[in-house]
Amino acid sequence: MASLPQERRSRTTLAAIAAEAGVSLPTVSKVVNGRPDVAPATRARVERLLHEHNYSRGALRRHHRSGLVDLVFNGLDSPWAVEILRGVEEWGATHSTGVAVSAVRHGDARPASWTSALASHDTDGVILVTSELTGAQLGQLRSAGIPLVVIDPVNPPPPDIPSVGATNWAGGLVATEHLLALGHRLIGAIAGPGDYLCSVARIDGYRSALERAGVSFDPGLVRHGDFHHEGGFARGGELLDLPGRPTAIFAGSDQQAFGVYEAARQRGLRVPEDLSVVGFDELPVARWASPPLTTIRQPLAEMGRTAAQMLGELVDGAPLRSTRIELSTELIVRESTAARAARPSQHPS
Amino acid sequence: MASLPQERRSRTTLAAIAAEAGVSLPTVSKVVNGRPDVAPATRARVERLLHEHNYSRGALRRHHRSGLVDLVFNGLDSPWAVEILRGVEEWGATHSTGVAVSAVRHGDARPASWTSALASHDTDGVILVTSELTGAQLGQLRSAGIPLVVIDPVNPPPPDIPSVGATNWAGGLVATEHLLALGHRLIGAIAGPGDYLCSVARIDGYRSALERAGVSFDPGLVRHGDFHHEGGFARGGELLDLPGRPTAIFAGSDQQAFGVYEAARQRGLRVPEDLSVVGFDELPVARWASPPLTTIRQPLAEMGRTAAQMLGELVDGAPLRSTRIELSTELIVRESTAARAARPSQHPS
Repeated sequence: MASLPQERRSRTTLAAIAAEAGVSLPTVSKVVNGRPDVAPATRARVERLLHEHNYSRGALRRHHRSGLVDLVFNGLDSPWAVEILRGVEEWGATHSTGVAVSAVRHGDARPASWTSALASHDTDGVILVTSELTGAQLGQLRSAGIPLVVIDPVNPPPPDIPSVGATNWAGGLVATEHLLALGHRLIGAIAGPGDYLCSVARIDGYRSALERAGVSFDPGLVRHGDFHHEGGFARGGELLDLPGRPTAIFAGSDQQAFGVYEAARQRGLRVPEDLSVVGFDELPVARWASPPLTTIRQPLAEMGRTAAQMLGELVDGAPLRSTRIELSTELIVRESTAARAARPSQHPS
Repeated sequence: MASLPQERRSRTTLAAIAAEAGVSLPTVSKVVNGRPDVAPATRARVERLLHEHNYSRGALRRHHRSGLVDLVFNGLDSPWAVEILRGVEEWGATHSTGVAVSAVRHGDARPASWTSALASHDTDGVILVTSELTGAQLGQLRSAGIPLVVIDPVNPPPPDIPSVGATNWAGGLVATEHLLALGHRLIGAIAGPGDYLCSVARIDGYRSALERAGVSFDPGLVRHGDFHHEGGFARGGELLDLPGRPTAIFAGSDQQAFGVYEAARQRGLRVPEDLSVVGFDELPVARWASPPLTTIRQPLAEMGRTAAQMLGELVDGAPLRSTRIELSTELIVRESTAARAARPSQHPS
C-alpha cells in the first residue's frame, strides 16, 4: 500500500507548485480538483507546472476515496439510459461504490455545467455517455486527475481516452443477412445522422451484406434519419411511397423501427406480412411492440458494466488492458420479419 | 446558521451516549450513520440512549453535507425509472446536489442491501421508489437520522413517512369517461395486482365512471394483470375471447396496453377500428406505439422533482408543508381510441 509516503510527496509537490506559480495552495487544489472558480490564466499556469513536476494523475486522489463514481449522460430522455445505468449500478453494488447520475445541460445558460456539477461532491471517477466531449472538458478532468471512461453509443472519443462501444458494422451486416435469407431483395435502410460513426458503420454493414449476396446496392433505398421515432416515421414513409416499394427495411435503431411501423400502419401495410422490419438496440420496448420487433441487440447494460470495470481499474491505478473495448452485437429474431411473399402485395391504399 | 454551537452540542451528546452505553464514540457514529457492522444488541442500546437524550435527528448531519442524495429504486428494469430519475436529477442540478442511484436487491443473498449500500458513501437523504419498506429498514434510516421521502407508483408508505403519489382514482375515472363519450358501453378493464392500492383506486374510478353514466358494472369484464406486458397480453386475450367481446379496454398501465395491442393483432383485430385501448402512465414509448396510445399521464418526472424538493426541505430542517402530496393525472388523447363502430364488427378469425 505505502500510501503515506506518496501522499506526503503529493502534498510537497503541490506546495512547491503553489510557491512557483505564486498562488495559494487552495488555488492549486482547486485546479487539481477541477473546480470552476479559477481564472483561466491561473489555471493554465498551474496546469503547466503540474505537468513539469510530473505530478502523477490520481496520486493524491487515491488516498481520498469517496466511494462514488459519476455517470454522466448526454440527456436523460433516452430509454437506453436506464439500460446503461443498470450495468453500472450492478457493478457499483458489488464494489461498494455509489453511482451518481447526472445529465449534460446544453445551451449557453449553463456553460461546462456537467464538469462543474461534478464539483458538488467528491468523485472517484467519471463514466461519460455522450457524443460530445470538448477539449476544454477533457482538460478539466485531466488536470483534476479524475479518471474517465467513455461509453459511445454514438461516436468514439479520442483514442487516448478509454472507451467502450459495440460492433455496429457487424450488427448492420447480420441484420441485412437475416432479411436476405428470408428472400428479400428490395431492402431499404434508414441510417442515423450522417455524422455519427456508429450510423456509418451500420450502413456499411448493410451495404456489405448486399454485395456479398450479389444484390446491387441502391443509394435510393437509403435514407438518413435522426435515430428517433420521427426520423423512422418520415423516412420510412418515403421508402414506402417509392414506386419500387421495399419489402423490408433495416431501420437503424429501435425507435426508428417503431416509426416505420406507424408509417406502414397509416398506409394499410401490415408488419410482417407486407413489410419486414429490423431494428437496432434491443430496448426493453422491442419485445412489447406489436408485432414484437426483430432487432440487433446492443449490450447496453454490459457496456455499462465494462466501463465501470475499466474505471475501477483506473481508480485503483492499475494499467488498462485495452483503451478500447467493443462488445458484440447479436441478432434477436422476433415477429416483425417474415419470408418475402411469393407474389409482392399491391399497395392497398 | 449558528452551526458551530449545535455541532459542538451534538458531539458532546454523542460522547456522553458512548460513555453511558459503554461503547466507543466510533460505534455510536456507526449507529448514527446507519452502518451495518454493529451488533444488534449494541445498536438497540445506543438507539435507546439517542432517543432518551433527545438526540435531534439530523442535528449532526446538517453540518456535514455531502452534497448528495440517494435515489433508490425497487428495480432498474422499469421504463418509468428514468422518468423519475430525470425529475430528481433536474432538481439536483439546480441545487448543487448530486444524485446517487441504486436498486434494491431482493433475495436472501443480499439482506438489507439497499440500506447498507447507502453506507458506502455519505448521503444527505434518501428518496425511495418502491412498494416495499420494512420496519427494519425504516428503523435503520431513522436511527441514522437520514431524511426519507417515498415516491409510490404502487403503495403509499406509512402515514408518518413523507410521500408523493398520483391521483390514481381520478385517472381511472377520466379514462373510462373518455371511452363512454366515444359511445362505448362494453368496456373491459385490466387491473394491476390486487394488493396494489394504486390498482384498486384506478378500477374504482372505472367503476364509478360507468355507474355515473348509468352503465351497469360487470365484474366479468375486469381482469387482474401484473402491470406488465405479459398481463395485458394474457388478460386482454381473455377479454377479447368473451362471447360479448368488449369494444374498448381500459388497460390499467401502458405496458398492459401494449400487451392488449398484441392480443388484438394476433386475433386480426385492429386498434382503434375494432378495439379502443386506453393505457395509464404515459411512458415515453406511448407516443411511439402503433397506433400512438391514448393514455392517462402520471407525472413521473414531476413526482421525482416534488420528492426531491420535499427531501431538500427535510435536509434543511424546514417543517414539511404536507406529508402527502398527490399530483394530478391527465388524459392524453392519441389514436388508440375511436368512436364505437355503428355496427360492431365480427370477430374475423
